Amino acid sequence: MSDKIYTACVLVIGNEVLSGRTQDVNINHLGKELTALGIRLMECRIIPDIEGEIVDAVNHCRAKYDYVFTTGGIGSTHDDITAKSIAKAFGREFCMHPVAEPMLLKHYGERANVARMRMAMTPKGAELIDNPVSRAPGFKVENVYVMAGVPLIARAMFDGVKASLKGGKVLASRTISTTDLSEGMLADELSAVQDQHPNVDIGSYPFLKLGGFGVNLVVRGDDPAKIDAACADLIAMVQALGGHAIDGDTKGEVPK
Amino acid sequence: MSDKIYTACVLVIGNEVLSGRTQDVNINHLGKELTALGIRLMECRIIPDIEGEIVDAVNHCRAKYDYVFTTGGIGSTHDDITAKSIAKAFGREFCMHPVAEPMLLKHYGERANVARMRMAMTPKGAELIDNPVSRAPGFKVENVYVMAGVPLIARAMFDGVKASLKGGKVLASRTISTTDLSEGMLADELSAVQDQHPNVDIGSYPFLKLGGFGVNLVVRGDDPAKIDAACADLIAMVQALGGHAIDGDTKGEVPK
Repeated sequence: MSDKIYTACVLVIGNEVLSGRTQDVNINHLGKELTALGIRLMECRIIPDIEGEIVDAVNHCRAKYDYVFTTGGIGSTHDDITAKSIAKAFGREFCMHPVAEPMLLKHYGERANVARMRMAMTPKGAELIDNPVSRAPGFKVENVYVMAGVPLIARAMFDGVKASLKGGKVLASRTISTTDLSEGMLADELSAVQDQHPNVDIGSYPFLKLGGFGVNLVVRGDDPAKIDAACADLIAMVQALGGHAIDGDTKGEVPK
Repeated sequence: MSDKIYTACVLVIGNEVLSGRTQDVNINHLGKELTALGIRLMECRIIPDIEGEIVDAVNHCRAKYDYVFTTGGIGSTHDDITAKSIAKAFGREFCMHPVAEPMLLKHYGERANVARMRMAMTPKGAELIDNPVSRAPGFKVENVYVMAGVPLIARAMFDGVKASLKGGKVLASRTISTTDLSEGMLADELSAVQDQHPNVDIGSYPFLKLGGFGVNLVVRGDDPAKIDAACADLIAMVQALGGHAIDGDTKGEVPK
């Protein structure tokens, strides 16, 4: 396996997410999936249904990252402008897709109408992404994957393409938690542990609980032995500071 | 009230959101709050804990939008680099804040240590944002509001600043739903209703249900009478297409 680090960006396209009407869940799902594939999700943007904004974001991100995944705005209504905007971003004609058109004509039969058939339009030369839920396809142009916003469909579309994605080393992670030390009680020592383990990244995530804070310490890296070594030092650190250390895998307390 | 449209951007700073470890909920909360204040959330970005990425995103967004709200990365541990990165973005010295320092010294008392006191450091000249939950403050530099990532604290910080935010006309919205028509069955007619009501924005949001799709049609605008007029036409449209129209406010079916 090469040491190349593969990177990705997710663009969520939709006024309804920005207005607070809809809680996005696609970013979280794609983050987990990409991490498991050895692809690093480096950025997400949530942008409105405005052509210029979509064009700018797509062109910036497709140049910067190996993969761009968009969700939202590929339905049949007047406010679904993603597909046409992607065509504009690539400077390609927006036209009936030669495979999608007969597929949707057959699928809808007598129910085919102008609006539904608009979902067979893509940038010229796009490859289709299968939609096993409701047929109207997503599509891919170069490194940009255009998917639906409805979470069940977005997931099904991603499932269909993920075997074709190239990833690098998969980052593994282990979590050591403590419920009786706050970040401020362990931060100095934690910084020293991080310095002693430069091949892993240690993230510290506080959480509120009754009576104070706890902390999840998440160790990430591509070498399980190095992760385990850092976790052993974190456990010793927590215990030396008088806290109980909890293993994120077993949820059990680690004995001293 | 002026007709100026006030805009905002949210920057979520945190590897844990990108990796899928954490489901962000701050964007959705801020989206609702800003909408209610007459401020349009135009963009959100989720970016990693990397100084250069934070600096670039902050500088781009603070020039483009009236307000920028960041969440995450202002704790006491080595991976909390937001405050220092914001100082760099503004070209300001990163130093002990003259109000935050004595406040945290008093709050922590004997528990004050280097790590905790680092949470009293801000870009020079920053105004503090109160943290009623756990004291360590957020801060504001010009139009950039730097808040915690822990949702309870982020909310409390935003509650503390929102009275000082200027908004424009508040967009109101009404929703008309149908569970027996899909987007493809009403898209052509919907487009005509949108054309007849240019002063409102009609968004169409499909949802999956057993046996097919339903649609939420959300009408947004700054004039309740125009929203109601568009909704009346949407109800008539749904019923003319043979569907049942449901009022989003009452959840009841609208009689023919």
